[in-house]
Amino acid sequence: MSEPFIHTVKVSWGDCDPARIAYTGRIPNWCLDAINAFLDHHIGGGWYFQEIDHDMGMPFVSMSLDFRAPVTPRHPLDCEVWPERLGTTSVTFRVVGRQDGTLCFEGSFVEVFIQASTFTKQPPPDRVRSLLEPLVRG
Amino acid sequence: MSEPFIHTVKVSWGDCDPARIAYTGRIPNWCLDAINAFLDHHIGGGWYFQEIDHDMGMPFVSMSLDFRAPVTPRHPLDCEVWPERLGTTSVTFRVVGRQDGTLCFEGSFVEVFIQASTFTKQPPPDRVRSLLEPLVRG
Amino acid sequence: MSEPFIHTVKVSWGDCDPARIAYTGRIPNWCLDAINAFLDHHIGGGWYFQEIDHDMGMPFVSMSLDFRAPVTPRHPLDCEVWPERLGTTSVTFRVVGRQDGTLCFEGSFVEVFIQASTFTKQPPPDRVRSLLEPLVRG
Amino acid sequence: MSEPFIHTVKVSWGDCDPARIAYTGRIPNWCLDAINAFLDHHIGGGWYFQEIDHDMGMPFVSMSLDFRAPVTPRHPLDCEVWPERLGTTSVTFRVVGRQDGTLCFEGSFVEVFIQASTFTKQPPPDRVRSLLEPLVRG
Repeated sequence: MSEPFIHTVKVSWGDCDPARIAYTGRIPNWCLDAINAFLDHHIGGGWYFQEIDHDMGMPFVSMSLDFRAPVTPRHPLDCEVWPERLGTTSVTFRVVGRQDGTLCFEGSFVEVFIQASTFTKQPPPDRVRSLLEPLVRG
Repeated sequence: MSEPFIHTVKVSWGDCDPARIAYTGRIPNWCLDAINAFLDHHIGGGWYFQEIDHDMGMPFVSMSLDFRAPVTPRHPLDCEVWPERLGTTSVTFRVVGRQDGTLCFEGSFVEVFIQASTFTKQPPPDRVRSLLEPLVRG
Repeated sequence: MSEPFIHTVKVSWGDCDPARIAYTGRIPNWCLDAINAFLDHHIGGGWYFQEIDHDMGMPFVSMSLDFRAPVTPRHPLDCEVWPERLGTTSVTFRVVGRQDGTLCFEGSFVEVFIQASTFTKQPPPDRVRSLLEPLVRG
Repeated sequence: MSEPFIHTVKVSWGDCDPARIAYTGRIPNWCLDAINAFLDHHIGGGWYFQEIDHDMGMPFVSMSLDFRAPVTPRHPLDCEVWPERLGTTSVTFRVVGRQDGTLCFEGSFVEVFIQASTFTKQPPPDRVRSLLEPLVRG
């Protein structure tokens, strides 16, 4: 079994709203950054590299998030990422955010694989599937 | 029946990613802006005013979004907002984004009502409930 | 003499930091949005249209900003924009932000004109120069 | 002489615009994040901690930035930060951004020290001055 992948965020003053906690709108962005970092680590490049160097796009078709506890600058924000389902032409990522051991948010994010130049859906190349498949867990 | 509430966004170059469409992370932020604008219009002030002038907070407990078509700068982005459910201590908003008649995204966003100074859940004041209730639709 | 061009921003809860005023990092972004809106209004399209439809890029080479008074959600933020200098291959925009008559910030932003496909500096086409030139003021 | 302070940013797909380089508006935000990280490292907490735990605010009065080369996701973005001037009630930070040895941007950012609860200018406490002073260089 592989190591958990953790993308750590330094939450800042500018991420917080007048309630002194991270603004809700920041959280999906951190999740996306975490997924991009996961891809960079595990398939040899994030979305930028897949799109520009490999003509593979990965647009999102849905996201859902539950917010469990406020996020603040008082601790690092650890975002754990893994693929929870790999379909024929899509992948679902799970992202779980924790600070100092407390669950702050969790969500699922579905991307489809496309040929970037034509914006048409297609199965991911073997290169990508073979790297993601062993990392899938429910 | 009340008029639909539409919050219109001018999508810009800086909102777009190298695929030449709005970056996914911008979309939940536009939805939040649209909900805030709805509250500003219908209950006499957005979150800033509710928190600071009325000691009422409205933190989010969940969001879910489906992305139906890309968003681009080529047309205004019209975000329609309405409350689809008003519970004892929570409200669910529906946000539907359209460009030039095309459905681009749709989502649901659940907020709870709290006393801001103590961060404890409580029913919204009558002032708020009486204004939101007639606007609820499924 | 032409009408002043004003781009109005609805400042939201999520734009504010725990000091209950707009976060500094939001302000250059609003200035850029205002310049883009000015171009959209005056030269028939913002950066997205110039780049994609006309192969003209306008990267920034510098910006400077003075912050005069806090920005809050309590009033609309009116951003006035005009070109203060039009050089052979560059243009300098002035942006002045005001709320309820109070000067909040002012800044200058220098862009160069490039051919987008080659990223090489070049004078703007006559189409652009002839539209911008009459709007220049110090 | 102290070690240079470097705040490293992972530039992502979502930071880039359709020209495939980081959007201009992202750069001042990275500079602010870098200054906040510098304060966190050198004076025992960034703006959030100074404001909330020590009643010291540090609003910005100006910023100026020169953009020297495009920023992309292809290399880490190293932001070096140091104080270049410490006045009676203000501090000027220099931020220099580099990727793979190339100078990408450089800028100066002036903050004043205030008592957060009253929003009035005041000299920084000795605690802060004594930590910043030895780090000042031109």
